[in-house]
Amino acid sequence: MTHRIAILGASGYTGAELIRLIATHPGMEIVALSADRKAGMEMAEVFPFLRHLDLPRLVKIEDIDFSGIDLCFCALPHATTQQVIAGLPRGLKIVDLSADFRLRDPAAYEKWYGQPHAAIEVQKEAVYGLTEFYREEIRAARLVAGTGCNAATGQYAIRPLIEAGVIDLDNIVIDLKAGVSGAGRSLKENLLHAELSGGTHSYSAGGKHRHLGEFDQEFSKIAGRPVQVQFTPHLMPFNRGILATVYLRGAAQDIHAALASRYAAEPFLRVLPFGALPSTRDIAGSNFCHIGVIGDRIPGRAVVVAVLDNLCKGSSGQAIQNANLMLGAEETAGLMLAPVFP
Amino acid sequence: MTHRIAILGASGYTGAELIRLIATHPGMEIVALSADRKAGMEMAEVFPFLRHLDLPRLVKIEDIDFSGIDLCFCALPHATTQQVIAGLPRGLKIVDLSADFRLRDPAAYEKWYGQPHAAIEVQKEAVYGLTEFYREEIRAARLVAGTGCNAATGQYAIRPLIEAGVIDLDNIVIDLKAGVSGAGRSLKENLLHAELSGGTHSYSAGGKHRHLGEFDQEFSKIAGRPVQVQFTPHLMPFNRGILATVYLRGAAQDIHAALASRYAAEPFLRVLPFGALPSTRDIAGSNFCHIGVIGDRIPGRAVVVAVLDNLCKGSSGQAIQNANLMLGAEETAGLMLAPVFP
Amino acid sequence: MTHRIAILGASGYTGAELIRLIATHPGMEIVALSADRKAGMEMAEVFPFLRHLDLPRLVKIEDIDFSGIDLCFCALPHATTQQVIAGLPRGLKIVDLSADFRLRDPAAYEKWYGQPHAAIEVQKEAVYGLTEFYREEIRAARLVAGTGCNAATGQYAIRPLIEAGVIDLDNIVIDLKAGVSGAGRSLKENLLHAELSGGTHSYSAGGKHRHLGEFDQEFSKIAGRPVQVQFTPHLMPFNRGILATVYLRGAAQDIHAALASRYAAEPFLRVLPFGALPSTRDIAGSNFCHIGVIGDRIPGRAVVVAVLDNLCKGSSGQAIQNANLMLGAEETAGLMLAPVFP
Amino acid sequence: MTHRIAILGASGYTGAELIRLIATHPGMEIVALSADRKAGMEMAEVFPFLRHLDLPRLVKIEDIDFSGIDLCFCALPHATTQQVIAGLPRGLKIVDLSADFRLRDPAAYEKWYGQPHAAIEVQKEAVYGLTEFYREEIRAARLVAGTGCNAATGQYAIRPLIEAGVIDLDNIVIDLKAGVSGAGRSLKENLLHAELSGGTHSYSAGGKHRHLGEFDQEFSKIAGRPVQVQFTPHLMPFNRGILATVYLRGAAQDIHAALASRYAAEPFLRVLPFGALPSTRDIAGSNFCHIGVIGDRIPGRAVVVAVLDNLCKGSSGQAIQNANLMLGAEETAGLMLAPVFP
Repeated sequence: MTHRIAILGASGYTGAELIRLIATHPGMEIVALSADRKAGMEMAEVFPFLRHLDLPRLVKIEDIDFSGIDLCFCALPHATTQQVIAGLPRGLKIVDLSADFRLRDPAAYEKWYGQPHAAIEVQKEAVYGLTEFYREEIRAARLVAGTGCNAATGQYAIRPLIEAGVIDLDNIVIDLKAGVSGAGRSLKENLLHAELSGGTHSYSAGGKHRHLGEFDQEFSKIAGRPVQVQFTPHLMPFNRGILATVYLRGAAQDIHAALASRYAAEPFLRVLPFGALPSTRDIAGSNFCHIGVIGDRIPGRAVVVAVLDNLCKGSSGQAIQNANLMLGAEETAGLMLAPVFP
Repeated sequence: MTHRIAILGASGYTGAELIRLIATHPGMEIVALSADRKAGMEMAEVFPFLRHLDLPRLVKIEDIDFSGIDLCFCALPHATTQQVIAGLPRGLKIVDLSADFRLRDPAAYEKWYGQPHAAIEVQKEAVYGLTEFYREEIRAARLVAGTGCNAATGQYAIRPLIEAGVIDLDNIVIDLKAGVSGAGRSLKENLLHAELSGGTHSYSAGGKHRHLGEFDQEFSKIAGRPVQVQFTPHLMPFNRGILATVYLRGAAQDIHAALASRYAAEPFLRVLPFGALPSTRDIAGSNFCHIGVIGDRIPGRAVVVAVLDNLCKGSSGQAIQNANLMLGAEETAGLMLAPVFP
Repeated sequence: MTHRIAILGASGYTGAELIRLIATHPGMEIVALSADRKAGMEMAEVFPFLRHLDLPRLVKIEDIDFSGIDLCFCALPHATTQQVIAGLPRGLKIVDLSADFRLRDPAAYEKWYGQPHAAIEVQKEAVYGLTEFYREEIRAARLVAGTGCNAATGQYAIRPLIEAGVIDLDNIVIDLKAGVSGAGRSLKENLLHAELSGGTHSYSAGGKHRHLGEFDQEFSKIAGRPVQVQFTPHLMPFNRGILATVYLRGAAQDIHAALASRYAAEPFLRVLPFGALPSTRDIAGSNFCHIGVIGDRIPGRAVVVAVLDNLCKGSSGQAIQNANLMLGAEETAGLMLAPVFP
Repeated sequence: MTHRIAILGASGYTGAELIRLIATHPGMEIVALSADRKAGMEMAEVFPFLRHLDLPRLVKIEDIDFSGIDLCFCALPHATTQQVIAGLPRGLKIVDLSADFRLRDPAAYEKWYGQPHAAIEVQKEAVYGLTEFYREEIRAARLVAGTGCNAATGQYAIRPLIEAGVIDLDNIVIDLKAGVSGAGRSLKENLLHAELSGGTHSYSAGGKHRHLGEFDQEFSKIAGRPVQVQFTPHLMPFNRGILATVYLRGAAQDIHAALASRYAAEPFLRVLPFGALPSTRDIAGSNFCHIGVIGDRIPGRAVVVAVLDNLCKGSSGQAIQNANLMLGAEETAGLMLAPVFP
């Protein structure tokens, strides 16, 4: 059975990644693509790498007939997203890739995103889209809010450890290295090749990165008490991939055991043998997440390293995994593509 | 129906690329993998990006039981290849990715590869593996010799033009830009990141590159007279992709028409609208080849630019395309993966 | 003796490169820096890599007192430049890095730049800034027009060959690979790291690149008859460096001899031994240009490869070399910095 | 006055960087260069980017006449270095860039480098080469042991904080991002462009990196008690530059004040305004180190980020700075070169 799919915001990187993945998905067909400023263009003009596909022309959202559409991916900027989703048909299944419905508490949204939430009623029905931890809720959901890509990486490394009670909740440091495609197709000086290649720098340091809102919400919920992590992202001179180096207090072997046990049956989450640490190169282009654990020479300290592809497992791959669940399809459908190396 | 596949030389980049593609191929199953020095290892140790696959352990060639194998990909170094293939069972279908069976004339082999051919009888049954031009021969072949990746790129740009008689045969210049994965997993100083990134240089210039043997053989055969091209490859600081800028004498519109007409029904070869030129970024990770044509301000001159992924369409993707034909499968099976961008 | 220097347009890459070079120049002191939109800012905010220098704050051009200034570098966009330079004090020495005064024929300017020249009188006194070929005129000039960076690279490879009469003037092809810093600090989608890294494409192909105006002017002047070259630039995923692969008809040994002889006494132009070809990596960050020559297997054909750093020898280094001459200083002053490798 | 210099191990990256810097140093002349396997070659063959310099041919160490040499840089592998330096003339000033004389305690050397120290007597006169903290000892030294490049970066961030007593000594985490040139010109698979570009991974994690020996020695000495840090280096897909993100407990403002005060008069160490964090791009190719401090949202926590060029300030630039002191020259001589950006 083939489901009919619309993608709103098809001219950005996550929109293009959705199309890439759906191109070989056995049960999805793209019937509508929107892009506001580029309405009227063919996708082959916007993203020539999709030239081989027979895709609908880009249109404005208001020109889409949603009546025959089974599921809509929404890859629009935050704030805009709230308005658009509030106006979509009530019966339409939606997977949102923006930040707008990730935070359950409107006050937290306002704190991290700088403005009041404008669709609080819609927020109430949103399910947080970290598939492996909200699988049943997602299966039943009408609206799933995709996670932040950095937020997903950190949570895959840490959630089972809070659940298992094997780490000190007040000593969590996430030092994250993020590929530049996570910044989107934005025209900013610091994203130019001449500026970015050949070096690295931190950004949103000191507790200012918005994905901290997700860490706070999720980790505190699991722990049953407030948990705050320290988090420093760094912009990397490569396109795809996030590597999170997580510094923890706890017994490294217990930490490894908790992760390995929790993820043993997961198709996309792979825990490496104890002491082995992963590389972003080994997941680029795929929906896999590799996680490694090592102990430190200082007793009682451990490092967990998690890697995933920000555009795929961190965003569009996750979105399709969730859509598969919402549509009653095989969860892994279309997502078993191997990483591309070198 | 699932065909049983062996890959000899699975520890190099083309071997790994074969595995990546077969991982989502609907009609192939890998039952044997060889790697001489790494025999005994798991593929996940040699190429951690394949960690999610359930693959046979690496063995030595002599330890493979070929009796149940339908087709064998041979991704070994040249010279070694001749010996290995000469020793394989007579009934086994083989797709060779090395240079050993590309040149029909043993004298040409000796000239370009510096040593006499050691398996001349086997050479006689080899079919040159440029799929779109040897499709029927490949379908019937026992042994197909995969082309050089540079040789494939240049031929896609030029062959239809010789066939159509629209270019001057004595004025062909191929200036080629080659991604570094084409050099293989070799430990050479000039392939180190510190040496290669951040710049470019030519290599094998002045008519010394071995793929000229293929250009000479094929272009002269089509033309019915000797044709020699000028060819300068340049090593590029990126991993996948070849761009060939071909300088020609002829009417640009006729050149475009000849290419567009010849490739109209081809699933993997895409001729862009007249005046548009392609980018390697738009085919990386895929089996597609994009070709563009533009006229020059100097009347009677034209430029054809062709791009493909050296590891995929230029090597392992081509090999699978040929294997599909030899096994009676759909030619495009397993090969419609979209490029990965960004 | 220290000369007092102003730089107009200090917030772009060529402006920053001028400051980098002057930082260790023994006879220049920067006394004024302009940047229109960034007036009021410190250079350390605009280019933090210059943080260690004690530089004047950025101002608007109209706020500069030119009375005590010995020489002004003008690194503004074309078209704007004409107006600004026409308004500068008559006695001020000027080295212009824009395209506005490169073409002696106003009709050629209009053809290539799409608008009439607005300062034809000033154009008349401009000297073309290819130092090694206009040294005496530059020494005496008030206004020197820096060359295009691609134009400089091609000319270093070809000019002595036209002078010596050793090549066929109707068969010159320049295939050029250009580092992205040549495109400036412009906010364009195709200059983003995510779009540019990992691949290459041609641009302004088919005889449309503006630097052809310089090739036409200079080569025709030397030859005493119209000369038109074919020229295809390609955008490279590295920051600094241009490599020009020039395809010629002529005796390779004569070509090598003509270049080696012409450049024997030049401090910055290095002709490699016959058969050796250069790499951009070996000149990045420096004012050197390396040139190599090789013959082809087809008799009567040769390839010349020239490399230089587009920001330095192709632009700001050339500008300082010319300024040294105009100020009566040692021509190499401040310019003997070694390339930076790796 | 010009001092006569020898460089042992001139065919590696730190050797080449020494030559690059000395090329424009006003008071040093290179009179001997050694490279064991490449003895007999010209430097232009080994490092073509040095082609413009008039350098002595490479020889074996035993063929150098040290009688007229004022100072010898030793850029040899560890272990080899001990033997070579033990055999050099007693009166010769030596700056060693290897790890062999960094650790004052022979037991620590054996622990971290896996073999007993073979020149314990020589070790006794070695001065640790972190210029800004051992300036007077270096001025008087015969043998200076250059620091590890990672060790230098971490120490610049942390030493003044231990001295000032503003941080918790038991909660120091150094997450380090290291450019690949720090791994040297070694033929290893993971250093190939095809393997390294496009991603990142950690290495020597869990307290196994040898530079921990230097951290332990120096931090414990300052603190007057044992101090152990947690340290995870990551290999970066760029050539030059180290960024250390240091997680600390203490008042961020006090930390900033301690660094700013301690380095106020240092020519190469620049503390950014509070809250600003540095980028490796802004120091590449130079002897500068930029340091920034920011507070976290969690009270009592701070992040210090330090960047330097591993080949220059972390190795060869440091070596020349120390040599300047040992020779009675201006400490900054030859080292005020601006970084190269972009």
